[in-house]
Parts: sequence; C-alpha cells; structure tokens
Amino acid sequence: MAEIIIHEVGPRDGLQMEERVVPTATKVRWIQRLIDSGVDVVQVGSFVHPTKVPQMADTDALFPQLNAGKATLSALVLNEKGLERGLAVGVGMFCMGVSASETHSRKNTGMSVEEATGRIIAMAKQAIAAGKKAQVSVQSAFGCGYEGVVPREKVLNIARAFADAGLRSISLADTAGHAIPCQVEQMYAEILALAPGIEAACHFHDTYGLGLANCYAAMRAGATSIEASAAGLGGCPFTKIAGGNVCTEDLVHALQRGGVRMDIRLDSIIDVARDIAAFFGREMPGCVHRTGPITSGRHA
Amino acid sequence: MAEIIIHEVGPRDGLQMEERVVPTATKVRWIQRLIDSGVDVVQVGSFVHPTKVPQMADTDALFPQLNAGKATLSALVLNEKGLERGLAVGVGMFCMGVSASETHSRKNTGMSVEEATGRIIAMAKQAIAAGKKAQVSVQSAFGCGYEGVVPREKVLNIARAFADAGLRSISLADTAGHAIPCQVEQMYAEILALAPGIEAACHFHDTYGLGLANCYAAMRAGATSIEASAAGLGGCPFTKIAGGNVCTEDLVHALQRGGVRMDIRLDSIIDVARDIAAFFGREMPGCVHRTGPITSGRHA
Repeated sequence: MAEIIIHEVGPRDGLQMEERVVPTATKVRWIQRLIDSGVDVVQVGSFVHPTKVPQMADTDALFPQLNAGKATLSALVLNEKGLERGLAVGVGMFCMGVSASETHSRKNTGMSVEEATGRIIAMAKQAIAAGKKAQVSVQSAFGCGYEGVVPREKVLNIARAFADAGLRSISLADTAGHAIPCQVEQMYAEILALAPGIEAACHFHDTYGLGLANCYAAMRAGATSIEASAAGLGGCPFTKIAGGNVCTEDLVHALQRGGVRMDIRLDSIIDVARDIAAFFGREMPGCVHRTGPITSGRHA
Repeated sequence: MAEIIIHEVGPRDGLQMEERVVPTATKVRWIQRLIDSGVDVVQVGSFVHPTKVPQMADTDALFPQLNAGKATLSALVLNEKGLERGLAVGVGMFCMGVSASETHSRKNTGMSVEEATGRIIAMAKQAIAAGKKAQVSVQSAFGCGYEGVVPREKVLNIARAFADAGLRSISLADTAGHAIPCQVEQMYAEILALAPGIEAACHFHDTYGLGLANCYAAMRAGATSIEASAAGLGGCPFTKIAGGNVCTEDLVHALQRGGVRMDIRLDSIIDVARDIAAFFGREMPGCVHRTGPITSGRHA
C-alpha cells in the first residue's frame, strides 16, 4: 500500500444523523484532537440550511475556533449559498456531490442527475478559482437505497463529466452501503482510467459489514484517499438504511499494522472515539476503540 | 470470484467461548437449519475433554441426531482419542491444527510446534485411511495474542510439512485476529504455490474489523473455502483477545450480491443468527441479521 490520505468525516457525516445535538464547544474539542492526530483532512461540517439539519447549524461558527495546523479543513456544500458561507469562514477544501441515482438526486436536491452535475461542476470551478481545493463526488455510486442497482455507466458518465471539466479530485460514495469489493475494484480501475492525474477517494458505509473490505479493494485499484469517521459514526439521511461510516481508528490501525501512515497518532483518534461513545451513551460500531490496538509488533 | 465453499463453524468455534451452555436439542435445531441452508460443511463440535470445554460435551451425542443431506459434517479433533470418538459417530471431515506460535502451541497442547506438526500429520493420515476428509490448519498464522508477530516462514514451514505429507486441504487460522489484507494475500499466494492441487481455506476473526476484508484478500489470492460463524459468534479460549468469527450471513450476503453461491438459503442462516442472538440475549457482531439483506437487485 502506498501512503494513503485520511479524510476524517465524522464531525459532518458522522454527526448529521444523530438527533442529540453536540454542543459547539464539544465539537471543537473533538475536531481539534482529530486535527492534532495528524490525519490529512477533517470535514468540519456542512453548509446546509440550519433548520434542515440542526446538528450542522454551527458549521460557520466552528471554523474560526479551530487551528488547522498542517491539516486541511473541509466542508460539504450543497449549493452556491453554502459555497459563499464556506469562503467567508476559510474552508480549505469544498466537498460536493451528485447522486448517480435519479430518485436519490431528486429527493436530496430536487434536481435531476444532469442538472445537478452541471451545477456541481460550476461550483467546484468557483471554489478552485477562489484558490480552494474542490473534491467532487458521485453519491450512491454502488447502489441506491431507493433504486437498488445503479448501472456502472451512470457513475462513469458523471465522473467523466467531472474529468472533462478538468476536475481531478473525485470521490465515490457508497451512500447506502451496497458496494461489494469486486465491484469496487473494477469501478476504481475505470475511474482512474478516465484521465491522467485523477486522485480517487472513497467513502464507504459499513451497513452490511464490508466497509474495510471495500477500502482494501479501492486501494488495490489505486484509490489514494479514504473518508472515515471516528468511532464508526455515520449514516445518510436520504437513504432508507445506512450504517456507520468506515471507522477511522480501525482503518488507521490496519494501515499502521502494515507500516503505512505511522505518523498518525492513533491513540488520539481512539480517545476521541471513546469520548463520542460516552457522549451518545451507546456502543459505537468501531472495534479498536473497544479492544485497544495490537501492541505486540506489526507486520511491516 | 469463483464458487466458494462455506464452512459453518459457529456450532464449534462460535459456541466454545460462550459460558451459557446451549441445550443439545437447541444445538440440533440450529445445526440442522444451517445444514438445510445449503452451506457445504458444518462443524458440529469438538472432541475435546468435556470438563475442559463443557459447551462441547455433547459433541458425540449431536452427530446421530443430524441429517447431513448433501453437507459434510466436520469436527475439531485435538488428539487420537478425539479421532476415535469422531470415527465412532460418523464425522465426515476431521479438522485439526498446529499453532505457528511456540507459546500458543505449548499453552494449547503442551507440545512444541514440531512435535504437534508430526502428530497432526499422523492423525490426518489416519482419518484419510479411514475414508474421511481431513483438513489441517495452521493456527495463529497471522500473528499471536502471546507472541505478537509470527514470522511468515514459520507458517510456511508447517504448511510445507503438510503438503510434503500429501495433505492438500490446508486452512490458515487467524486465531487472534491480527491479519491484515495485504499480508493475507501474500500468504495465500505462497501457500498455494507449495504444491499442485492445494485447496486453501481461511478462518478469520473480526477482532479489529478486518474479517471480511481478509476473506476478500484470501479469495483474491485463490483461497476457495471460508470458515465463518452464524451471527458472528466466536473466539478462541487460548488467546488473550479474540473477537467473533467472520459472520456467515454477512459473508453469504456479500457473495450473493456478486452472484456467487445463489444456491444457499440466506434467510435460513439469518433465522439461525437471530435465534442465537435471542438465546444469548445480546447484540451479536454480524450486520445482516439485524439490517436484513438488500432486496433491491444485485450487482451480478
């Protein structure tokens, strides 16, 4: 495995499904510890309308309270208004996506896949023009909670439109957790073949137990960035069933067992995961914050 | 993925860690449903001394109460006495192993790795001479709860001894859950290169969240048989930390999403998993018996 970029999305994708709103001061503490652990990118929140997702209402307020250090702070944006808000508070990387499922796209954004693709490309170019990073994603890329199978060609068409527009940071999101490893490996090979210089990211949910298996398959095919949530928090409000995101500390533990990303402070991520589990008062999906890491030597 | 043999080991490896003894009639009901689901091999129990593992005390009594149909009924044997007991009740496949960790071997069997290897080979030959199948395994093949790293060469030496003795059904067991996918893929490639006709099996624990990822890696390298437990029950009494086995219904669900092993009745396995969870009165590690399977179309 080459060096892998870790994109912590717990504070956004992890928390947005939680009904109990996390106080801003607690979020700041969690996010700062995640930044300080040495992960590369931390997704602070989402510039969605505050009444739609109350958990994300303090996204603008969080940025000025964080010390990014060497990390990039990212945020999800859904529209031009969100982009403006993000530019105003100093977001480093804008993440934005299009669903490959017409039903998911219309329920989520009110737009067709084609309309949404055009709009997202325009927003990504605007972010880049403002000197920011932009990561564009295809949501429901491996199946949809509403539609079931999502034809591969629909995913590739959106990714091709991104690549043709000069965008190179492309993520595939398994919003509903439907992906299986052989499908993932094939899909990433095709995405990376679309244009030279594509940096492929992956975003898997562990709904059916395949989160880390799909990460391995994606990395095997050449994906270089993985989105994950501390404690395995997470879900998607727009699909019927969605389990937690791939768990950050389980992922980092596995990578470090193979000698990769030894610079990341796993203990800091485990501490945050334990704080998250204590805050919500229930068992979280991740393993390593419960078992502790293996300390008796590693393979590489 | 080629067709994959499913070896259900829940009634043995799954239950042996459980303190609450399952009544024989309940075991018969669970095992018969697992057999009827269409999995290939079901491990009924272990011919260990009844006072050592009370949960396994009824192993001899179980066999005459089961209708194997097209399935093979297997059992774990630790010594010649167990082999005799198994032959007396009609075991179809004898499973027996050697730990690649000296500490684990001595704690588990009182023998060195070398002694244990010789003894297991002799027992396997005896089972084959009696017209039975014999599967030999290397335990702690990817790391040890006592020793930490287990050098690859130690695993290969044992497997080579098995192959040199003419044994072809070889399983690698990740007793402590230490395996990572890239290690697994490399190891299976080397095992399969030891001799023509080797049938490689795998036995992973999900202690650190990598169970299915390691199965995928093993299958990629050519492993053709997977040992798994309904509901993800399981552990090993001889290592300090060990989580559940790979969960059978999660594995079969994933395979069927890719069009493999469509003959297996997933719903039967899910029913047993739910019965197991109800019996023990706690949440079990598997996902699919809680979420239900994806019913909205599959990838292959």
